[in-house]
Amino acid sequence: MDYTLRCNSLKCRTQLNDRAVVTTCSHVFCIRCSDSLGLSSSAGIARTCPACSTQLSNPDDAVVAQLNPTEDYKTSILSGLSPNIIMECASRGLAFYSYQTSQEIVYQEYLAKTLTENYGNLSQQMDKLILEANSEIKTLQEKLQGYNPVQRCC
Amino acid sequence: MDYTLRCNSLKCRTQLNDRAVVTTCSHVFCIRCSDSLGLSSSAGIARTCPACSTQLSNPDDAVVAQLNPTEDYKTSILSGLSPNIIMECASRGLAFYSYQTSQEIVYQEYLAKTLTENYGNLSQQMDKLILEANSEIKTLQEKLQGYNPVQRCC
Amino acid sequence: MDYTLRCNSLKCRTQLNDRAVVTTCSHVFCIRCSDSLGLSSSAGIARTCPACSTQLSNPDDAVVAQLNPTEDYKTSILSGLSPNIIMECASRGLAFYSYQTSQEIVYQEYLAKTLTENYGNLSQQMDKLILEANSEIKTLQEKLQGYNPVQRCC
Amino acid sequence: MDYTLRCNSLKCRTQLNDRAVVTTCSHVFCIRCSDSLGLSSSAGIARTCPACSTQLSNPDDAVVAQLNPTEDYKTSILSGLSPNIIMECASRGLAFYSYQTSQEIVYQEYLAKTLTENYGNLSQQMDKLILEANSEIKTLQEKLQGYNPVQRCC
Repeated sequence: MDYTLRCNSLKCRTQLNDRAVVTTCSHVFCIRCSDSLGLSSSAGIARTCPACSTQLSNPDDAVVAQLNPTEDYKTSILSGLSPNIIMECASRGLAFYSYQTSQEIVYQEYLAKTLTENYGNLSQQMDKLILEANSEIKTLQEKLQGYNPVQRCC
Repeated sequence: MDYTLRCNSLKCRTQLNDRAVVTTCSHVFCIRCSDSLGLSSSAGIARTCPACSTQLSNPDDAVVAQLNPTEDYKTSILSGLSPNIIMECASRGLAFYSYQTSQEIVYQEYLAKTLTENYGNLSQQMDKLILEANSEIKTLQEKLQGYNPVQRCC
Repeated sequence: MDYTLRCNSLKCRTQLNDRAVVTTCSHVFCIRCSDSLGLSSSAGIARTCPACSTQLSNPDDAVVAQLNPTEDYKTSILSGLSPNIIMECASRGLAFYSYQTSQEIVYQEYLAKTLTENYGNLSQQMDKLILEANSEIKTLQEKLQGYNPVQRCC
Repeated sequence: MDYTLRCNSLKCRTQLNDRAVVTTCSHVFCIRCSDSLGLSSSAGIARTCPACSTQLSNPDDAVVAQLNPTEDYKTSILSGLSPNIIMECASRGLAFYSYQTSQEIVYQEYLAKTLTENYGNLSQQMDKLILEANSEIKTLQEKLQGYNPVQRCC
């Protein structure tokens, strides 16, 4: 099974199964984020990619893609074109997908690295805490033992 | 260089360089022929392929294709789709082109066969004509020679 | 159905269904022609393409291709490669096929043109022949008629 | 940039840049792991995939792939084949790559999930430890305060 792309807005990251907005700078957003982030606005207004800040000046720079096209669409979308142009379109579509998956791997690796670091920090913090607690307990226990002779002398 | 497709209307066969109407039954027509043959009509009216008489009932069964797409179009047309769907679209586009070229070869082979037959027929016809002419000339010459003795006897 | 390639040796032109020798200059030959034209010789000897005279100095410049590969072969031949390299290989393979079909169309068009010219020449030749024969027959007939009065005067 | 595949042996996971062994069950191993895991052995001996235990009975079920093929190789590897077969090979190669990247994402997600769980566990453990330490310290401090009157009564 192919990996299902996710909205490139890091606050969203919803899986994209139906329709999505794709940009010529290789990013993809869910319709909701595209609307709220100003990608769906009419061509007159300057648009920038929410993921990489690229200027999207042409109308074709950010378009709605149907991710589950009909059989008729799949049959006719590249019909009439020469093998050369067909392979160019396919290569670019694959490069887009490949970029998305490699970015997802980079993101997950970053996540794992951050989590590992956080775990290490927490672990260190806990070691320090244990040390401090043990030290405080030991001090208190020593104090208690210090009183004992006094107690006994009574 | 890739072979340039031709309008599938045999009376036209113009080279298609800019825009063309492609059908899901793998045929392609110039805009002029598409208009005159009823392919460009609104979806309400029943359309049939002028080349193979297939019923084209869905709007997507005959669509205008831009044969020289822009760079932005080539970049975004398959972006966001999974590798599986991209390869499906590319394979169908290539099958369309492959069908057109193999049909063109069949057409040219048929043309060559017809021309060879016509040449053979003309050649036979000429042989027969030469034979008949020679035979008639011989008959006339013999007749002429037949008169000579008569003349001389005078 | 895809067009079946033919041996590029014009004296052969056999359909290639099983194995064939392909060159990096985009030509293809049946095994028999490859053997007789010196393409199958060991890499030590200089080889030239019988179709376009390109020097084939590297061993990979002319290799045997299995035209009906097994399922396992189709599965593993491009496995492990990146999408970029896979599409490069596929594009070059398609360019090879596309070149072959467009060359076949050029060949068939040339054949049709030559046959049409030959037919035209034969047709002209026949017209001239008919004219000459008719003229000779007419001359003979007039000669015959010229004798008639003489005959009658007898 | 396309993601660089990694050896599917979890103990290795080295990046594969030059040569690798690919299996028809869509797994890939570095040459060193392939050797040590019995994939490189001669065809006579039964081989199984170290990643998924699939029986690899045919010689073509596990083959060495050159991941950086030469230009001549890229030109000739699919030459002579029909568009149909070329696209089949390319689709399978892309499916292999796509499977590898989606598995890598699954692996990284699993790693992140495990790390998050570990972090949660450690965090809980630390909370419990703090609670216990604080409780012990409080007990000791109360004990100490309990002695004070005794001390004072002396």
